Amino acid sequence: MKLLEDRIRKDGVVLGADVLKVDNFLNHQVDPDLMLAVGKEFYNQFKDSKITKILTVESSGIAPALATAMSFHVPLVFARKHKSLTLKDDMFTATVYSFTKQTSNTIAIAKKFLSADDKVLIIDDFLANGQAVQGLTDIIKQAGAETVGAGIVIEKTFQKGRKMFDDQGVRVVSLARIAAFEDGQVVFADEQDA
Amino acid sequence: MKLLEDRIRKDGVVLGADVLKVDNFLNHQVDPDLMLAVGKEFYNQFKDSKITKILTVESSGIAPALATAMSFHVPLVFARKHKSLTLKDDMFTATVYSFTKQTSNTIAIAKKFLSADDKVLIIDDFLANGQAVQGLTDIIKQAGAETVGAGIVIEKTFQKGRKMFDDQGVRVVSLARIAAFEDGQVVFADEQDA
Repeated sequence: MKLLEDRIRKDGVVLGADVLKVDNFLNHQVDPDLMLAVGKEFYNQFKDSKITKILTVESSGIAPALATAMSFHVPLVFARKHKSLTLKDDMFTATVYSFTKQTSNTIAIAKKFLSADDKVLIIDDFLANGQAVQGLTDIIKQAGAETVGAGIVIEKTFQKGRKMFDDQGVRVVSLARIAAFEDGQVVFADEQDA
Repeated sequence: MKLLEDRIRKDGVVLGADVLKVDNFLNHQVDPDLMLAVGKEFYNQFKDSKITKILTVESSGIAPALATAMSFHVPLVFARKHKSLTLKDDMFTATVYSFTKQTSNTIAIAKKFLSADDKVLIIDDFLANGQAVQGLTDIIKQAGAETVGAGIVIEKTFQKGRKMFDDQGVRVVSLARIAAFEDGQVVFADEQDA
């Protein structure tokens, strides 16, 4: 998605070897017009899949996921993160490890909001090691529902998340695919291929 | 806002003396069409105020705040909550006490996203004791910016938040105003007045 790649080039900040800071338009300050465009693009990519629900994890996933839900006119459900959680019968839960923060969180969704009839599209801001998306697919499996695919705003192709979902046969659509950071600059996968 | 009052009557669950659960359409599962309508209504109410930025707190505030930012075509900034926070020079911070959870959080916004030129509209899902909105007004003051008003999805008029902002001269627009819970049913302020 050219609009997004241009924005990453303009406002993204590369930190160290593998971190891209996009708090200017995606995960602290949020550009609502860009989110609308992101939501429409995910709709175009998945519109034939009879999606019944959009799933994400708080907090950074909520903005792109809500914009996507607006295009589909289906409910968004966002999983809550808990440092520790007393297991409850009315919740589906999964453990998500954060490589960045080196901590584990439990993510949880009320059982009443996911059923075996649901065809679910996962939306998230980043795909790196794939832990958050994996947690959501686990929860969808617990509900007996179907993971139709995952829509990712920014993917880092050099980390292991993409391969994990390719191996599982989960369709992943990423709007910007970063192949590498070189001298503090972003190299997109489509440039590298070219 | 009749659409919202009807939805609260249909899907809201009253728990005990003063809790309304709206996780079906507002703060766990989210109805994107309702959020669009909410955002348009806040736009109608504040469109003459030259708003430059929408401010909220993660996570439940993000959905109505993003929808509002879409109507205004101005950036949304959401404050992050931290259990503990090493104070940093590049952040505005405020302490927010939660009466429900009986814990304090620090909320923080990067200084680069708020400036003295900003005319800020605060958006939140609930107004009860007003602690979260108060924390945001504190941060806006630190930036030397102007709090134009607060747009609240659901207000509980019988708790102290509303009076606090009336006393401070902050314009508060609430789309549903709950005056009381009686026998597990919601009584809206406009019914009570009638």
